[in-house]
Amino acid sequence: MSAPARVLVDGVSTQTVSAFDRGLSYGDGLFETIRFVHGVAPLWSRHMQRLQASGERLRLPVSDAALLLREAVTVADGLEQAVVRITVTRGQGERGYALPSSPQPTRIVAAFAAPAMAGDAYAHGIRLRWCETRLARQPLLAGMKHLNRLEQVLARAEWSDPAIADGLLCDTDGKVIATTMANLFAVIDGALVTPSLDHAGVAGVARAEVLASQAAVRVGDISRKDLLHADEVFLSSSVRGILPVQAVDDTVYVPGPVTRALQRHWRGLGFPMEQA
Amino acid sequence: MSAPARVLVDGVSTQTVSAFDRGLSYGDGLFETIRFVHGVAPLWSRHMQRLQASGERLRLPVSDAALLLREAVTVADGLEQAVVRITVTRGQGERGYALPSSPQPTRIVAAFAAPAMAGDAYAHGIRLRWCETRLARQPLLAGMKHLNRLEQVLARAEWSDPAIADGLLCDTDGKVIATTMANLFAVIDGALVTPSLDHAGVAGVARAEVLASQAAVRVGDISRKDLLHADEVFLSSSVRGILPVQAVDDTVYVPGPVTRALQRHWRGLGFPMEQA
Repeated sequence: MSAPARVLVDGVSTQTVSAFDRGLSYGDGLFETIRFVHGVAPLWSRHMQRLQASGERLRLPVSDAALLLREAVTVADGLEQAVVRITVTRGQGERGYALPSSPQPTRIVAAFAAPAMAGDAYAHGIRLRWCETRLARQPLLAGMKHLNRLEQVLARAEWSDPAIADGLLCDTDGKVIATTMANLFAVIDGALVTPSLDHAGVAGVARAEVLASQAAVRVGDISRKDLLHADEVFLSSSVRGILPVQAVDDTVYVPGPVTRALQRHWRGLGFPMEQA
Repeated sequence: MSAPARVLVDGVSTQTVSAFDRGLSYGDGLFETIRFVHGVAPLWSRHMQRLQASGERLRLPVSDAALLLREAVTVADGLEQAVVRITVTRGQGERGYALPSSPQPTRIVAAFAAPAMAGDAYAHGIRLRWCETRLARQPLLAGMKHLNRLEQVLARAEWSDPAIADGLLCDTDGKVIATTMANLFAVIDGALVTPSLDHAGVAGVARAEVLASQAAVRVGDISRKDLLHADEVFLSSSVRGILPVQAVDDTVYVPGPVTRALQRHWRGLGFPMEQA
């Protein structure tokens, strides 16, 4: 495995957590994967906003953002291009689902070398496939980057062809939601659209940046049929940035002006990877 | 917390696991909570059957049952009434959802003192409430006791009144599924019925024992309305056995002959708790 450069668990340099942590017992926690460039994370505040908002939904007290930033910078130190994963769990508790009476959350801050993308991924786009796995519709969990990710594990296990970069997922109602690890945007009939994530999917930090930077984006339902005649399709990811899609199975797309404008926006934020 | 008597992680006495275990990162694993009585687990083979079958569904190699039994007996040693939790995860992996190319599952075997029930729970029954939380419908995960349990955590967080022993859950279609920690049975119009778990819920080991021991049980859909006029309602749980329900919110039930017969069956299996 790509060993992490450094890990802090509750501020202490260690590689382990309690075998009774509720993050392990029940997936009772949240995480963020944050791209750092030379020690700086351009989307840091959006990550902290999501973590805080999700913590409130789960009644999970999240550490102070300033403390998390100090720890993230510490573990990423020495890595030019890093991904810092921050995991916050509800900590140890009695056996059983009930919330601990005095919760002591666990925080794990770990840095990894940022993943390398194929050389022409940003220029010519990546290839996707349709997954058989459907995402369940659960409004109580939708939008959050929580630790219950078996659906993504099952979807990602559907293929091993390294030429396929990611898989597209519909929910159990047949609505297109996202890929296993990124959010989806498409230009359809001249309008930029992205799926509503009220019932399934993770509301990505990069997606939030796209929404904030564009004058008009429609957030709504997208069917597989809609996607067939899209003019542009691209993914947004906090780790990988703006990735044009060149094909979904046999349907071919060409990166267009909206995709290119967003890649420029990403470079303007300080991300280096979209050297398209 | 009720500290575990002893813990073995991959056969080694320790209290910790890797901070990069996929059980923690993604809830990528399974568990069993197994009642031991004087070192014996009457439903052991059913637990192993479920673990094995779920492992196949998740493509997660599960340890040999004989090894797990040795470790379970070791950690439960000295506890008259124990609950042994066996957790099997997909172990450490690279960052990302893809299955590790050479998976090395982690197994955690821990013993806890069995929970004490209120003195008259088995005789007069327990009180339940209806939860607001709805279970998502996900056939790919339904039935398994996997580590993605945020729905149960959210449901259990809805109440703190210690007089309420558990909460009843419907799925997002409004079908009654289970409580947060047990399966549900009801006698309706003279027939014993239990919800189908094809789309949500955990197919409990105690439920399997009830199904195997009864000549006729209907497995199908149950609505809240159906439950209103049930003659008997009880829960089945591998940890707690057969628990009569005396009330769901304001609807009152009286433990009847089917419930009592199953409690006798449980005592016949070697469980001591149903001293009704």
